[in-house]
Amino acid sequence: MKKIINNPDEVVSEMLQGLVKANPQLQYSKDLEVVSKIDKENKVGLVSGGGSGHEPAHAGYVGKGMLDAAVAGNVFASPSPDRILKGIQEADTGEGVLLIIKNYSGDIMNFSMAKDLAEMEDIKVEMVVVKDDVAVKDSTYSTGRRGIAGTVFVHKLAGAKAAAGGSLDEVKKVAEKTIANIRSMGMAMTSCILPGVGVPGFSLGDNEIEIGMGIHGEPGVERTTVKTAAELAEILCNRILEDYDYSDSEVAVMVNGLGATPLMELYILNNEVEKILSEKNIKIHKALVGNYMTALEMSGCSITLLKLDDELMNLLDAPCDTPALKV
Amino acid sequence: MKKIINNPDEVVSEMLQGLVKANPQLQYSKDLEVVSKIDKENKVGLVSGGGSGHEPAHAGYVGKGMLDAAVAGNVFASPSPDRILKGIQEADTGEGVLLIIKNYSGDIMNFSMAKDLAEMEDIKVEMVVVKDDVAVKDSTYSTGRRGIAGTVFVHKLAGAKAAAGGSLDEVKKVAEKTIANIRSMGMAMTSCILPGVGVPGFSLGDNEIEIGMGIHGEPGVERTTVKTAAELAEILCNRILEDYDYSDSEVAVMVNGLGATPLMELYILNNEVEKILSEKNIKIHKALVGNYMTALEMSGCSITLLKLDDELMNLLDAPCDTPALKV
Repeated sequence: MKKIINNPDEVVSEMLQGLVKANPQLQYSKDLEVVSKIDKENKVGLVSGGGSGHEPAHAGYVGKGMLDAAVAGNVFASPSPDRILKGIQEADTGEGVLLIIKNYSGDIMNFSMAKDLAEMEDIKVEMVVVKDDVAVKDSTYSTGRRGIAGTVFVHKLAGAKAAAGGSLDEVKKVAEKTIANIRSMGMAMTSCILPGVGVPGFSLGDNEIEIGMGIHGEPGVERTTVKTAAELAEILCNRILEDYDYSDSEVAVMVNGLGATPLMELYILNNEVEKILSEKNIKIHKALVGNYMTALEMSGCSITLLKLDDELMNLLDAPCDTPALKV
Repeated sequence: MKKIINNPDEVVSEMLQGLVKANPQLQYSKDLEVVSKIDKENKVGLVSGGGSGHEPAHAGYVGKGMLDAAVAGNVFASPSPDRILKGIQEADTGEGVLLIIKNYSGDIMNFSMAKDLAEMEDIKVEMVVVKDDVAVKDSTYSTGRRGIAGTVFVHKLAGAKAAAGGSLDEVKKVAEKTIANIRSMGMAMTSCILPGVGVPGFSLGDNEIEIGMGIHGEPGVERTTVKTAAELAEILCNRILEDYDYSDSEVAVMVNGLGATPLMELYILNNEVEKILSEKNIKIHKALVGNYMTALEMSGCSITLLKLDDELMNLLDAPCDTPALKV
């Protein structure tokens, strides 16, 4: 196993310490694996989190205009309720807290328990669940669709609404509208190795890729041979466009790398995605291209579309200042 | 070969088109592979470039406060003088142009020829050469030390000086001072595949890494077994600190990934680098952690230190707005 780590049991803690050292506007709660803003703002708090290994998600999105706290579980494992409660406490300034999670059973269970615990402390808490992955109906760790890279758009737009002084109810409504307008689809070309395991979680042949694979290596919809960027863009976009009507609308696009895919390839893919959307008269308001939601050193990508109306567009364009996204 | 590409001969062109589509404030000069700002500012122009495959370098650093144009060669190959001349023309607003290149023989030759061609068009051109890699004295493609990730700091600081209205001479002096204060050292864990070649350029054993390997796979100083993050930080930092006296100074740090190294590992490495510098009473003013100068899908990293004085610190903190770096 070739990884730049020390003790596999300490990767999350050491990573978050390294993140906070590079971003001194953030703080780290030892043992509870929570990253939060040092300067609290009097507004609705936003908390996200989940298993580690998807960096920069989620701690990389803590900062002005996005999240107030991120709670990290172990690699590919949901954080425990006590950690999440700490995140809620860090994010709460009396205006209530919105939890934004991806649709995995462990996260649903643990964030729900933490919500109950926080409510016993008289903190108002609401929760939204992102289910953007159109690949499969149910999956290894989820009932219903999985949450993947589109979650970052939910952080951004709900974060902007909270920064603008929206109430907990208003921020939740924006998050729900964003979630309803998002679809994603991914593919993987290589596996990844969990630090505590030491061997790949699955294997793909030399000329084999898996369409629709999840960000923890969960099964997709098809194993096939290596495709061109144009073919891949078509497969992934078509699946998204069949699922939701983006025609004649204005969208935000995310072309996301899973960790080991060179930026060169993501830009080539973006070039193809733009051609497909342009042919269908779908206008791209903004395109994010890079590693936004990864799967350790997995090689592969996902494409996300978000349909924008005036409100969502303004929230997307509002300023934010986080380690992984600045607008 | 598992890559998200179409025709291997078109990867540079398609990548730059995809970049510009995601960054509509930039424009792309077809066939000449130049990315430049659409809105010209009346100031000294900054141009960088070199072989492709190091994304986001260099087109990702075109924007306010950094470069005015970037010239892309084919993968790992220097751009031809006609391309570079186009970059100079795009960047020139009558105040002269500074070329910032990494120390590779092909770049030295081609950028020097382009400088001559531009001077025949009465454009004032100066050139600086970054040689930050302390690993080896001479290398496969360079006489003298190689230029690697520290180059991004030169873009940033010279870019800020130009944005502040510095003359060509003043901008060049800042670039030279920055170059004099920078040292870098890297290591690689896996090879990468050039799209036009299809097979890895070198191979490393399952438990083998190469200390000091260059960003084109050029030989380093030692092949050894996999190290912990703490050991790696010590090996790389020690080599840098032996070469230049950073004691009791304030520095900028870059912990750079070579393309396929997860952000998790870069943050863990940053955590170790901070410990080493802190023990030596070297104060970190700013740390950049991410993929700033890559080598396609090579797995590995580099560490860069830049000694700051008041002038360089102010220039580092000055605003910039580019695809790959925003301050």
